[in-house]
Amino acid sequence: MNIEQYKLNEYNQSALKDHQRKFDFIAADIKSIEAILQKLINFQVAIPSWALGTGGTRFARFAGGGEPRSLEEKIEDIGLLHALNKSSGAISLHIPWDIPENAAHIKTLAAQHGLKFDAMNSNTFQDQPGQQHSYKFGSMQHVNKAIRKQAVEHNIEVIKYGVELGSKSLTVWLSDGSCFPGQLNFRKAFQNTLESLQEVYAALPGDWKIFVEYKAFEPNFYSTTVGDWGQSFLYANKLGNKAYTLVDLGHHLPNANIEQIVALLLMEGKLGGFHFNDSKYGDDDLTVGSIKPYQLFLIFNELVEGMDAKGMNHATGLGWMIDASHNVKDPLEDLLQSVEAIMITYAQALLVDRNKLNEAQNNNDVVTAQEILQQAFRTDVRALVAEARLRSGGALNPLAVYRSEKVRDNLIKERGSKTVATGL
Amino acid sequence: MNIEQYKLNEYNQSALKDHQRKFDFIAADIKSIEAILQKLINFQVAIPSWALGTGGTRFARFAGGGEPRSLEEKIEDIGLLHALNKSSGAISLHIPWDIPENAAHIKTLAAQHGLKFDAMNSNTFQDQPGQQHSYKFGSMQHVNKAIRKQAVEHNIEVIKYGVELGSKSLTVWLSDGSCFPGQLNFRKAFQNTLESLQEVYAALPGDWKIFVEYKAFEPNFYSTTVGDWGQSFLYANKLGNKAYTLVDLGHHLPNANIEQIVALLLMEGKLGGFHFNDSKYGDDDLTVGSIKPYQLFLIFNELVEGMDAKGMNHATGLGWMIDASHNVKDPLEDLLQSVEAIMITYAQALLVDRNKLNEAQNNNDVVTAQEILQQAFRTDVRALVAEARLRSGGALNPLAVYRSEKVRDNLIKERGSKTVATGL
Amino acid sequence: MNIEQYKLNEYNQSALKDHQRKFDFIAADIKSIEAILQKLINFQVAIPSWALGTGGTRFARFAGGGEPRSLEEKIEDIGLLHALNKSSGAISLHIPWDIPENAAHIKTLAAQHGLKFDAMNSNTFQDQPGQQHSYKFGSMQHVNKAIRKQAVEHNIEVIKYGVELGSKSLTVWLSDGSCFPGQLNFRKAFQNTLESLQEVYAALPGDWKIFVEYKAFEPNFYSTTVGDWGQSFLYANKLGNKAYTLVDLGHHLPNANIEQIVALLLMEGKLGGFHFNDSKYGDDDLTVGSIKPYQLFLIFNELVEGMDAKGMNHATGLGWMIDASHNVKDPLEDLLQSVEAIMITYAQALLVDRNKLNEAQNNNDVVTAQEILQQAFRTDVRALVAEARLRSGGALNPLAVYRSEKVRDNLIKERGSKTVATGL
Amino acid sequence: MNIEQYKLNEYNQSALKDHQRKFDFIAADIKSIEAILQKLINFQVAIPSWALGTGGTRFARFAGGGEPRSLEEKIEDIGLLHALNKSSGAISLHIPWDIPENAAHIKTLAAQHGLKFDAMNSNTFQDQPGQQHSYKFGSMQHVNKAIRKQAVEHNIEVIKYGVELGSKSLTVWLSDGSCFPGQLNFRKAFQNTLESLQEVYAALPGDWKIFVEYKAFEPNFYSTTVGDWGQSFLYANKLGNKAYTLVDLGHHLPNANIEQIVALLLMEGKLGGFHFNDSKYGDDDLTVGSIKPYQLFLIFNELVEGMDAKGMNHATGLGWMIDASHNVKDPLEDLLQSVEAIMITYAQALLVDRNKLNEAQNNNDVVTAQEILQQAFRTDVRALVAEARLRSGGALNPLAVYRSEKVRDNLIKERGSKTVATGL
Repeated sequence: MNIEQYKLNEYNQSALKDHQRKFDFIAADIKSIEAILQKLINFQVAIPSWALGTGGTRFARFAGGGEPRSLEEKIEDIGLLHALNKSSGAISLHIPWDIPENAAHIKTLAAQHGLKFDAMNSNTFQDQPGQQHSYKFGSMQHVNKAIRKQAVEHNIEVIKYGVELGSKSLTVWLSDGSCFPGQLNFRKAFQNTLESLQEVYAALPGDWKIFVEYKAFEPNFYSTTVGDWGQSFLYANKLGNKAYTLVDLGHHLPNANIEQIVALLLMEGKLGGFHFNDSKYGDDDLTVGSIKPYQLFLIFNELVEGMDAKGMNHATGLGWMIDASHNVKDPLEDLLQSVEAIMITYAQALLVDRNKLNEAQNNNDVVTAQEILQQAFRTDVRALVAEARLRSGGALNPLAVYRSEKVRDNLIKERGSKTVATGL
Repeated sequence: MNIEQYKLNEYNQSALKDHQRKFDFIAADIKSIEAILQKLINFQVAIPSWALGTGGTRFARFAGGGEPRSLEEKIEDIGLLHALNKSSGAISLHIPWDIPENAAHIKTLAAQHGLKFDAMNSNTFQDQPGQQHSYKFGSMQHVNKAIRKQAVEHNIEVIKYGVELGSKSLTVWLSDGSCFPGQLNFRKAFQNTLESLQEVYAALPGDWKIFVEYKAFEPNFYSTTVGDWGQSFLYANKLGNKAYTLVDLGHHLPNANIEQIVALLLMEGKLGGFHFNDSKYGDDDLTVGSIKPYQLFLIFNELVEGMDAKGMNHATGLGWMIDASHNVKDPLEDLLQSVEAIMITYAQALLVDRNKLNEAQNNNDVVTAQEILQQAFRTDVRALVAEARLRSGGALNPLAVYRSEKVRDNLIKERGSKTVATGL
Repeated sequence: MNIEQYKLNEYNQSALKDHQRKFDFIAADIKSIEAILQKLINFQVAIPSWALGTGGTRFARFAGGGEPRSLEEKIEDIGLLHALNKSSGAISLHIPWDIPENAAHIKTLAAQHGLKFDAMNSNTFQDQPGQQHSYKFGSMQHVNKAIRKQAVEHNIEVIKYGVELGSKSLTVWLSDGSCFPGQLNFRKAFQNTLESLQEVYAALPGDWKIFVEYKAFEPNFYSTTVGDWGQSFLYANKLGNKAYTLVDLGHHLPNANIEQIVALLLMEGKLGGFHFNDSKYGDDDLTVGSIKPYQLFLIFNELVEGMDAKGMNHATGLGWMIDASHNVKDPLEDLLQSVEAIMITYAQALLVDRNKLNEAQNNNDVVTAQEILQQAFRTDVRALVAEARLRSGGALNPLAVYRSEKVRDNLIKERGSKTVATGL
Repeated sequence: MNIEQYKLNEYNQSALKDHQRKFDFIAADIKSIEAILQKLINFQVAIPSWALGTGGTRFARFAGGGEPRSLEEKIEDIGLLHALNKSSGAISLHIPWDIPENAAHIKTLAAQHGLKFDAMNSNTFQDQPGQQHSYKFGSMQHVNKAIRKQAVEHNIEVIKYGVELGSKSLTVWLSDGSCFPGQLNFRKAFQNTLESLQEVYAALPGDWKIFVEYKAFEPNFYSTTVGDWGQSFLYANKLGNKAYTLVDLGHHLPNANIEQIVALLLMEGKLGGFHFNDSKYGDDDLTVGSIKPYQLFLIFNELVEGMDAKGMNHATGLGWMIDASHNVKDPLEDLLQSVEAIMITYAQALLVDRNKLNEAQNNNDVVTAQEILQQAFRTDVRALVAEARLRSGGALNPLAVYRSEKVRDNLIKERGSKTVATGL
């Protein structure tokens, strides 16, 4: 399914007048409007290949239709998103769900859609058919060296696929942990995991990064062997300067101050990547910005502040990815909403008057500091984001175009109503 | 797989001397020892038919082997548990996973194992093959009357199966709710659900109860339409005097005081049943007593106090069921551990000196009140529970016998290593 | 301290042009602009008399200066707020902190500032000098009838003061509960509390309401005798149709879905009043909207929907109060920020397109339902709120005027830098 | 108030027979009984000087009577506890609440009671009368260098007092943080705090340790500048090898796995000290073991395992302190209950069969691993703890003696009923 550029232009044309009025209104109040627009244009969020099908829970999955049946169709889907919003110009692959049988072909296809290959993802939280050893009791933490070795080798294989595709980073999410007190010796589990990660690290190309993702709980329900940012940081520090922590918004205990974690990891030069989603209870994997948009803003506020303080490029300094599950929505619509929420929030964070904020902080003027953040957050920046999209050749209103073009219906016609994409 | 009585006797004989020493020690300190033993003997916990296979999470399932392939084999498994611990004399069936094709045959089989049929469970949280309407957006709450009707009819069908088997209650757990703000009109969802429950209630035989289970979240991640005890209580009150609230330990928000909820529901005459399990983070469905044994004791303390105050029979006044998932343990071993934890805790609650506790409470003697509870909880009552088992013809040490008899190996030989029991 | 109207007009004049541009922009997109403005003008939030001084924690209090030394000065402070924002036209008194020695005088003074007397608040969570019985072990729940009686009589006295001032409601917040397992018999504590509340209820004038506030924990750390909405609802139902539940945003367990609670209480006709504040961890009592503004929006969304469904007047149908603590900010500035956040959120909730939302809900179009809510929330409505203020004779920018006029400095000059207002 | 040894002996004599029966029963099952008893005898828990008076909340404090009016009387109180349980042989002082005007005298007095001086505690979370700068906006994190300097100097002064008394460690608990988003620049707050700590560290005697305590929230309600173990670990690592992390059980987010944190800090050689208490919701500061005794056991299980793996002496390897608040109990009774809970739990942890546990872990035998831990936890070890006390010259039942001797009544007679100990 493809939406041709002239079509997009037609849609944009019909919405242009209203957009222009809104853009002019907001632009009038912003000094560095062009610089901000350029940053918005540059910012790209990677789409995970496993997010294109309907997600599920341990209780049930209610599949939609027209899900991609192959890596090629996944790339097509992301290409469509990117054509619409011009902010989804990367794909994050998962092995073994997306093994590129013909890397050159896959690379070319992606390039045709303007897509790059962001972080590769390994999988040692499931057993694959024909796999020698089971990960029932963990992978890199396993008491059995042979099983750790299997997990290490899988990760090295993932790196190889990534090299072929031009990726530059590996995300390691381990579900390793325990369900019951006594099941694990925490220290030995940590040391086994460290040893395994070191072996993977040794196989990392010189220009690659490894992201060590942490998660507080699930699917293990008593302990997780990379359970919080402190543990991930310990691993990353012991591994070396190509190792970084990856923050997934849903992987924290209740009430955690994630923005502070982000600030401190940036301070230490150890923040590597980001998984966007939203949640109310646990790792709910909901649409970005759908539950706690102000928290997302506060996180972006720290990201912008911290990256600027380090002279990092916003677009390339960190790995930006979505990691959500789409249980009750059309996955592509859900992803459009998520990317929109990210762009809106990023734009708001760019509007924060940092000089005034510093001044308020230096005066312990808490009231003004709050006003400055709220001033940015309360600003309606949708026209800014739309303008950036317009200038990049995207749609003023991606979701409306998607619906008008009946994309899902077309995908179902093309692929069938019973297809199931690989993934969770 | 069956363990013959003479075998059990042999095992018991070899452990008897040590047991006798321990039992005599504890018995010396307990006045009403015989009454307590009788209560322990009488107390039976229903095993859910879906807990006999390996559980899983949304990420993976790591099946063991020898799982029951039919309802008959499930009854066999529970029969084995009951032969060992004499406290698992009931089974809680789930429709459509356990449709009894020949009810008379199933009833006879269960009776041979000394098992009764406890609460029936319906399923409107999954779509079954060939089902007309999908429950993707709920069942009893659904905006579409036809879908609500389908859910109602399913529940009425479950009641019919239950009547054939001699069950006397229906547990309704609804996963109904929403994943995103705006998805539902909370009021209409409540009213639709109430109307649906009323239709089921109307079909309830005169001597039946309906248990309305509540759950804070999962699989819906924004709202649940029977979300807490207050909501369940509202439904139960509006339905009538055959309707009760069912408490599942894992279905609460963090830090909830479950024992107080139990006490108030008993006070209002609206506590109907109980799902035992344990958890650290959410509905982790871990082995009973494996994470928060003192909380379990405090709950039993309220159950005993509240049931005594109402003159209720401990064994029959409420529906007692386990509802756990066995992801990393042999399900039968896990269930033995769960039942053992329940019996230990019940015994401890029976040891609480209620007169002294009342007195301490009346004097606001907080220190003594705490001492009284801790005195009971710190007492090692395992010999009491073992004695009750011995007198009932069970094993002094069920788990040791299970292992010595290599039950799992035998089940795998008999049923194969790749069987998958119906359930989650 | 008083800011004269001509001063306000001057400030407004200088900001008018910019305001007009913004108001015109937003007004262009809103159909029923006048109706919405009128609702904003009508909406009044009561200021609690204890929020005018610096708050504290159990660790420390860092007083500011110029705190009101008397009820008269408290009324002056609230009068100043109301002059600025025209949305704080009520005061919620606390006895014994604000006993009106001369009610007629106090009433006249309040009327001069355009203030009404909203809900009266009793205090049985502290011992007052000379008090006969201590509330160390509770008040209305107490095992000792004499102590319960003392608490009842205090509440009746509070009602009497309220009658003199023209108040029409009593808020009962009980800190009653327990710190340790065993300390209380939950059932008896409930029944004692109910009996006490019934005695207060009996003394309620015919046109009064009683609000039963609930709180999950603090200052008791094991149980609270009115611990959640379900318990409050039980009490309110047993008391009668003048009794209602009061929701304080900070009084819930982590992750609670407060908006659903609000919707169900409205459905049952038992929502009585509201305490606004914000929090990240517990009853943090932070500035309204400073932590979770979207949650506040979702709550207002339910309030508007539910009140409209019942034909209730937004301004008078429920009791609207702030209940926050000001530990690091000037209390008056903090209150200005809180009221502003409330007005902004109310305005956003008024913008929700209810017909379209209903339609999306009826179609299970989750994506569109989310878009509709986000459309309202992402709209910058500050100019709407400012316009309402302007039309009421308030300040376009209350906080800026407050600062320009150096109100705090003047209050310190007037009252001294070491004054401590009664309260927490 | 003093209880003479002959009195204790009399009490013990009357309880001896029953004790002997219980001790013999448990001793029969334990191989290394003498070694375990010796460890119990050696284990000492420091009592904080601020825990001898009635605690309070931000809402109220309900004082008891007979509270110590001076440091001398505090030492007397702890001496009494230690005479009774022989496990409270240390005191942890707080400056400025307990400034030793005459150190030699205080030292002698403590020695007479068999007490040592454990970690010293500084206070930069309150303003003291006459203090130049306020800590309203933090101390070591403060944007103003002069205020940071004041905090540093206070800590150096605390060290000096400690040196005079023979203490060997300083505990730094900072309430520093923020109440609102924007108030702080997290990075600068961290760096200011680090710089301040470095200045204190530089003043640390060669044989001293500094403990950096962390806390998730309260009294700041948005962020804490030493907020979790990861942050404390960062500071401790940057400071040097005399710096360690201190774990207070109540200072975590909901559901945190504290035992894993303890294990990892021990692994890294950075666990320094421990503050015992218990809690259900936040930093509730309840009696040790009163809410989650199994969690306490799991923590002790890690402590024993981890210290043994490092060859650390259980009694002296870490700083063991209670940090609780006594709002509704007699503080001395509460402390007796807390120490008893600690000793019981330590004894249970010593009973864990580590070889079998290792074996189970190596076999991924989760069921057996759980059984091993539960076997230890379910054992009634009270007679073990009592025997250790008996051999040390303490009371078989400290609380009973305390009550029989009417200690509180005597203290009230001696000190009055309106005394208020310094502290919170």
